[in-house]
Amino acid sequence: MISTLEILGLSIFGESHGKAVGFTLEGLPEGKKISFEELQEFMERRKSKGIFSTPRREADEVEILSGIKNGYTTGAPVSGVILNADSRSKDYSPLTDTPRPSHCDYAAMQKYGRFCDLSGGGRFSGRLTAPLCAAGGIAMQILKESGVTPAAYISELGGIKISTYKQKLPLAEDVIFSHNDPIPILDEGKRGDILRALDDARKEGDSIGGVVELVVYNTPAGLGGPLYEGMEGRLSSLFFAIPGVKGVEFGDGFAICDLKGSEANDPFRFEGDRVVTATNRSGGINGGITNGMEITARVAFRPTPSISKPQQTVNLKTKTEEIIRIGGRHDCCIVPRAVVCVEAAAAIAILDAMLARRK
Amino acid sequence: MISTLEILGLSIFGESHGKAVGFTLEGLPEGKKISFEELQEFMERRKSKGIFSTPRREADEVEILSGIKNGYTTGAPVSGVILNADSRSKDYSPLTDTPRPSHCDYAAMQKYGRFCDLSGGGRFSGRLTAPLCAAGGIAMQILKESGVTPAAYISELGGIKISTYKQKLPLAEDVIFSHNDPIPILDEGKRGDILRALDDARKEGDSIGGVVELVVYNTPAGLGGPLYEGMEGRLSSLFFAIPGVKGVEFGDGFAICDLKGSEANDPFRFEGDRVVTATNRSGGINGGITNGMEITARVAFRPTPSISKPQQTVNLKTKTEEIIRIGGRHDCCIVPRAVVCVEAAAAIAILDAMLARRK
Amino acid sequence: MISTLEILGLSIFGESHGKAVGFTLEGLPEGKKISFEELQEFMERRKSKGIFSTPRREADEVEILSGIKNGYTTGAPVSGVILNADSRSKDYSPLTDTPRPSHCDYAAMQKYGRFCDLSGGGRFSGRLTAPLCAAGGIAMQILKESGVTPAAYISELGGIKISTYKQKLPLAEDVIFSHNDPIPILDEGKRGDILRALDDARKEGDSIGGVVELVVYNTPAGLGGPLYEGMEGRLSSLFFAIPGVKGVEFGDGFAICDLKGSEANDPFRFEGDRVVTATNRSGGINGGITNGMEITARVAFRPTPSISKPQQTVNLKTKTEEIIRIGGRHDCCIVPRAVVCVEAAAAIAILDAMLARRK
Amino acid sequence: MISTLEILGLSIFGESHGKAVGFTLEGLPEGKKISFEELQEFMERRKSKGIFSTPRREADEVEILSGIKNGYTTGAPVSGVILNADSRSKDYSPLTDTPRPSHCDYAAMQKYGRFCDLSGGGRFSGRLTAPLCAAGGIAMQILKESGVTPAAYISELGGIKISTYKQKLPLAEDVIFSHNDPIPILDEGKRGDILRALDDARKEGDSIGGVVELVVYNTPAGLGGPLYEGMEGRLSSLFFAIPGVKGVEFGDGFAICDLKGSEANDPFRFEGDRVVTATNRSGGINGGITNGMEITARVAFRPTPSISKPQQTVNLKTKTEEIIRIGGRHDCCIVPRAVVCVEAAAAIAILDAMLARRK
Repeated sequence: MISTLEILGLSIFGESHGKAVGFTLEGLPEGKKISFEELQEFMERRKSKGIFSTPRREADEVEILSGIKNGYTTGAPVSGVILNADSRSKDYSPLTDTPRPSHCDYAAMQKYGRFCDLSGGGRFSGRLTAPLCAAGGIAMQILKESGVTPAAYISELGGIKISTYKQKLPLAEDVIFSHNDPIPILDEGKRGDILRALDDARKEGDSIGGVVELVVYNTPAGLGGPLYEGMEGRLSSLFFAIPGVKGVEFGDGFAICDLKGSEANDPFRFEGDRVVTATNRSGGINGGITNGMEITARVAFRPTPSISKPQQTVNLKTKTEEIIRIGGRHDCCIVPRAVVCVEAAAAIAILDAMLARRK
Repeated sequence: MISTLEILGLSIFGESHGKAVGFTLEGLPEGKKISFEELQEFMERRKSKGIFSTPRREADEVEILSGIKNGYTTGAPVSGVILNADSRSKDYSPLTDTPRPSHCDYAAMQKYGRFCDLSGGGRFSGRLTAPLCAAGGIAMQILKESGVTPAAYISELGGIKISTYKQKLPLAEDVIFSHNDPIPILDEGKRGDILRALDDARKEGDSIGGVVELVVYNTPAGLGGPLYEGMEGRLSSLFFAIPGVKGVEFGDGFAICDLKGSEANDPFRFEGDRVVTATNRSGGINGGITNGMEITARVAFRPTPSISKPQQTVNLKTKTEEIIRIGGRHDCCIVPRAVVCVEAAAAIAILDAMLARRK
Repeated sequence: MISTLEILGLSIFGESHGKAVGFTLEGLPEGKKISFEELQEFMERRKSKGIFSTPRREADEVEILSGIKNGYTTGAPVSGVILNADSRSKDYSPLTDTPRPSHCDYAAMQKYGRFCDLSGGGRFSGRLTAPLCAAGGIAMQILKESGVTPAAYISELGGIKISTYKQKLPLAEDVIFSHNDPIPILDEGKRGDILRALDDARKEGDSIGGVVELVVYNTPAGLGGPLYEGMEGRLSSLFFAIPGVKGVEFGDGFAICDLKGSEANDPFRFEGDRVVTATNRSGGINGGITNGMEITARVAFRPTPSISKPQQTVNLKTKTEEIIRIGGRHDCCIVPRAVVCVEAAAAIAILDAMLARRK
Repeated sequence: MISTLEILGLSIFGESHGKAVGFTLEGLPEGKKISFEELQEFMERRKSKGIFSTPRREADEVEILSGIKNGYTTGAPVSGVILNADSRSKDYSPLTDTPRPSHCDYAAMQKYGRFCDLSGGGRFSGRLTAPLCAAGGIAMQILKESGVTPAAYISELGGIKISTYKQKLPLAEDVIFSHNDPIPILDEGKRGDILRALDDARKEGDSIGGVVELVVYNTPAGLGGPLYEGMEGRLSSLFFAIPGVKGVEFGDGFAICDLKGSEANDPFRFEGDRVVTATNRSGGINGGITNGMEITARVAFRPTPSISKPQQTVNLKTKTEEIIRIGGRHDCCIVPRAVVCVEAAAAIAILDAMLARRK
C-alpha cells in the first residue's frame, strides 16, 4: 500500500455507484475539538452547484463511525462514510468497448482487467473527493486550532487569468470571503468573462480547465525535511491524487526558471522580531522545509475529459476506429468544486508534517 | 519515516562533508543483471564538469556493499556508499548567524535547531543526489531489461527555450545521444546562446535555472492507480526530492488548463494492433494509470540560491539586517547535472510501480 | 501509522459502543471470487454462543461498501462495516476512577488521557475482532483458491491439555469438523472436563484462558524472508493484535530450547518427488521463510480480565485503594471465540506474504 | 518493504561474506548525545567469546557514516557499517545441493532461487545481528537519557532452568552486572552445570538452545496502542527478526493460560503517589499499552541448526537421500551472544513507541 504521509494513515474507499464512499484517518491526536457543522459546511463547498455542474445531487452528509466522541477526537482512527444516495443504478453498464478519450477507462482496464468497476467512473470518479474533503475538513479544524489556515481560490479558468499570489499575496479574509460564491475568485471584474466561458463550454458540450491557487496562512517554520521528506513532495503527491491535476508548482514555480539567482532569492529581513523574507518566490519552502512564510502553490486542472461533443476512439472488440458521444451527467468545469479539494489535500499533508515535528 | 514507494524501500544517507553518502534499496527482485561499468557511466553524467560547475571534484565511485553478487541481484537489500573524498574539512564551520537567502540554512535551523549539520549543505546538498543516482542507475538497468527507458534532457535554460516534447516527441536515440555533451539539449542551434548565458551568470557571480524534460520510452500500460496511487503523484514526490525543484507537470501540464476538453483529449486510434492516442497531451497517464503512451514530464529547477553576488539577509544574533557574500565552490547552474537525477528518480518510481503490478 | 503488512493495507476502525466497527483492506488483487455467504459463515464462528459467552448479541452482518462487485474483487480497496446493534447506550459511562485490574483502562488513560472512549472497552474491546475476522475471512477465501488453508482449534483450556500438533499433526478435515461445535477441540474425551471448567468459572464469576493452535495446510514454500521480513514476525504481530494474547510460538516453540540441535533439526527426505521434513519442529519456517511444510503455531490467551469477583484496585481521584466488582456482560472465556480470530490474522499475514512473492 | 516501526525507519543490509554489514536508522530526533565508546562496548557483548563460540573473529567496529556530528545526532538518518574483516573468501561455495536440516538453505532457495547469496549464511547469518545491535545500541543510549533501561539475561540454557522474573523481578544492577560474564545469568549456582552443558554440546558436535529474558526498567506508561498498535506485537516482530527465535511471551506468557482471571489479574495499588500493580503477570502491558510496570518478556532460542554431527538430508540434484556433515565455524550455542540482540531489538521498538507518543 502506498502512502505519502509520515504519521497519519489515510485510506479512502468506495466507488461512484457503490453504496457509499468513505475514509479512515489514523493517527490523529486525541482531544481535538471537531464540529460536525463546520465539517458539513466544508463539504458543502465541494457540492455541485448551479448550471455548470453535474445535475447529480448528493446530500454529502458525512456520518462519522468512529474516533470522535462528544465532539472530541479520542485518539482512535476516525472513520466516516458518505452514502451514495443518487447513484442511478440504471446507469450501470458493463465495461465499455469504446474507451472515452483521456478518461480512465482504457488505462484502468489495462491495470485491473475486466473486473474493474468503472460504473460512473468507479474509484476514479470525482465522487471520491468527497471522502478526501471529509478527512481534510477534519484536519483543517485541527490545524486552525494552531492558527494555520490553508485557503484556496481560482486563479485561472478557461484561459482567463484572474488574480494570482505571484503578483500580490491576497489577504486571508478575501480568500475566505470568496468561498461564499460557487466560483471563488479574487477579482470580481473577471466574473462576467468567466461565466460566459462556462456557459459557452456547457452549450458546446465541451469543458474547460483552470488553475487553483493555495495560500497557507500562518505556516509554521520547520515542517518537512530534505530529499523525500520535502514539503513540496508531500503536498504534490496529495494534490496529484485529486482527479484531473496535471501540474503542481510552488511559489514562482516554472516562472522562476527564467530568473537569475539574484532575482529569485528571497532576501531575509526583520519584521519586528520576526524573520521574514522580502519576497516569497520560494513559496515558503527552502530545502524542503517551511521557512515561516506562507506556503504558496498552484495546481493545474485539465478540462474534464467527459464532454458530450463527438470524439474519435477505438472499438476494442471490433478493432475499428469509431466516433463516440458521451451521455450522462457531467460538470463542464470541475475547477470551482476542486478549490476545497486542494485545501483538504493541503490540510492533511500539513497536519501530518506538524505531527511529525513532535514539538 | 516517509516514503512514496509501494514495493521498494529507499533510504538515502550521508551529508555533504561527512565520510560518505550512500543508499539502501530494499525490495529489488533477485536475478537481475547489474553492470558496475554501466552504473558508473550513469554516475559520470552527474559529475561536475567544465567551467560552469563547482570545482569540487569527486570520483563518485559507487561501492556496492550488499545485494549484488557475481553481477546479479540476490534479492537482499542493495546498499552502496560513495566516499566523500574531497570534503575540505577546513570549510567546516559552525551554524551561521546570517542565513543565506533561499538556501536551506534558516529553515533547517527551524527544524533541527543547533544540532543540524549544515556544513557544505549537509543533507540538503546536491551531493545527496549521488546516492539517488546510484539507486536510480540500478533501477534503470532493471527497467531496460523490459525495454522501458526514461530519458531526459534540458528544455529551457536561463530563460532560453530549447526544444520541447510539447511540440514534437523527440526520438529516444536523439535524447540518449544528447547525453554525450555536458549540456544535453536537442537543438544544437541554441547551444551558443546557452553557453553565453552560463558564462554570463558565472562571471556575474549569479546563477540560472531551467527545465528538464523527461520522456519514458516504452512505458508499459497499467502502472499506477487512482487517487494516492496515481503515477503523477508517485513521480512528483521523487522529482521534488531533488534539491531545487519548484514545479512538476505532466504532458501539457499547466498549458492544458487553457484548452477546451475537445482540444485537450487525446483521441484513441489503432497503430496496427496497438491502441495508441493521436496526441499525448495527458503525458501517458489517465486517471493516475499509464495508458501505454510515453510518460512525459517537465521538472522546473530554480536558479541555485548559492550565488557570490552580495545579498541582503539578517543576523540572527545581532538582530540586524546585513549584506552577505557567499564564498566557496558552487555550480552557477545545476540543471545540466540534474538531467540524470530526473532519470534516476523516474526509474525508481516506475520500477516500483512495475513491481507493484505483479504481472 | 504502524503496519506489519508488506503489500496489503489493513485499517480497522470503530469502538465497542459506537455506531459501527469496520475495516478497509487495500491491495487485494482484482478478479478474486468472494462469497458473502461463506464470509458470513466465517463471521458466525466468532459470535458469542451458549452460556459461556457474553449475552451481548450482535447480528455481525458485514456490509461490504466497496471493492467487490458482482461477487468479485475489483482491485479497489475493500471496505466493510458491521453495525453495533446492541450497544446499550445506557451502559455509557465516563472514564472510571477505579481502573479494572489487567484491563486496558489505566494504560489507555495514560496514553489518551480523558478523551479516550473506553465505553464497553472502546477500541480495546473484543468487538474489534469482528472487522478483523471480516477482513480475514476475505483473505481466507482468496487463499483457499490456492489451496492454502489456515485452520485453528483449542489445544488447552483452563489448564486442561487437549490434543496438540506437537504430538501429532491433525488432519485438516478433523480441524474443520471441530468448527461445528462452539468449542472446537480435537479430543472429544476432554469435552466433559472443559465444559465443567467453563461452568465453574462462570458460576464463580471468574474467567479462564487457553491456547489456540494453528495449522496452515498446504503452506507454499518461499514465503517471508530474513530478519524483519520473517514469517514468524509477520504472523506474531497480527496474533498479538488480538486482545488477550500474551504468547506466540512456532513449531515446538519454547520446548525446542530444551532439545539439542541434533534432536531439534528436521531431517529432509523425499515424499515421492516432494522435499519434506521427517519432523516439523520448526513449524514450517526456517530462516524466516516457509519451507513447504505446514506452518504450525500456538497462541496463548490469558483469562479475560473482566471478572465479577471482587478485586483490589485504586481510586485515582481519592488516592485510596478500593475493592471493585465489575458488572456488565462478559465472556467467562474468550478462547472459543478466538479460534476464528487466529485463523483470520493468519490468513491476512499469509496472503500478504504470497502477494509479496510476485510469483 | 515491510516494517513494524511507527516513526523510525530501520534498514539492515549486508551478507555474511560480503564487504560489510550495516544499517540506516531514520527518524531519530536531533540533539541526542551518542558515545562511540559506549556503542562499542555494547557491540562487544555480541562478539564471539571463549570456546563455545565460533572461532570467527571480527573487530565489529561500527563506522558511523552519517547522522552524528560532534557526538550528537543531527536529525538526519544515522548510518553505520561494520566491515567483514574475516570473511574467508575461500569458504565461498555455490548453492548446495544438500540443504542443511532446519537451516535457511532450502527455504531461501525456494524464495530467491539460484541467485540467493547463502555463502556463510548470507543475509540469514547471525552476522546480521551486528548492525541490529549497532542500531539498537544507539537507541539504547537515547532511551537511557530518559532512564528507560532494557536489560536481558539468560533464563534457561540447554534445558537448565536458571532464575526467571516469573518468580522474582531481578534488580537492574544485578542484570547489568551479569553482562560482565560471557554467559550472563543471575544464579551463579547454575554456572557449573551450564558450562558442562556447553562443553558437552561442543564435544559432541551438537548445539543447545535457551531462553533470554528481558526486563525493561522504568518503562514509561502509555506506550503502544490497541490492535496492531500493541506493544507486544511491536516487540515480538523485532524479536522474531533475530535468527533462531521460535517463541515470544510477555509477563507470565503461556503459563497465564492455566490461571483463573482472579489469579492472573494484577491488582492495582499505590506505592506512595505512584500507581503500581501488586503482581506483574501482564508483563507491564494491558490492552497493548504499557501500564508503567516493567515490560517483561521471554524469547526462546532454538539450538542452532549448524551442528557437525551427521544428519540426514536430500540431494536435490540426484534426488536421493544423503547423510551430511557440516564443517566450518559455528557457535555450539548462540544464546549468550543473543542476550544483547534482545536488548537491541527492544530498545528500537520502545524508542519508536516513545517517539510516536509525541509527549
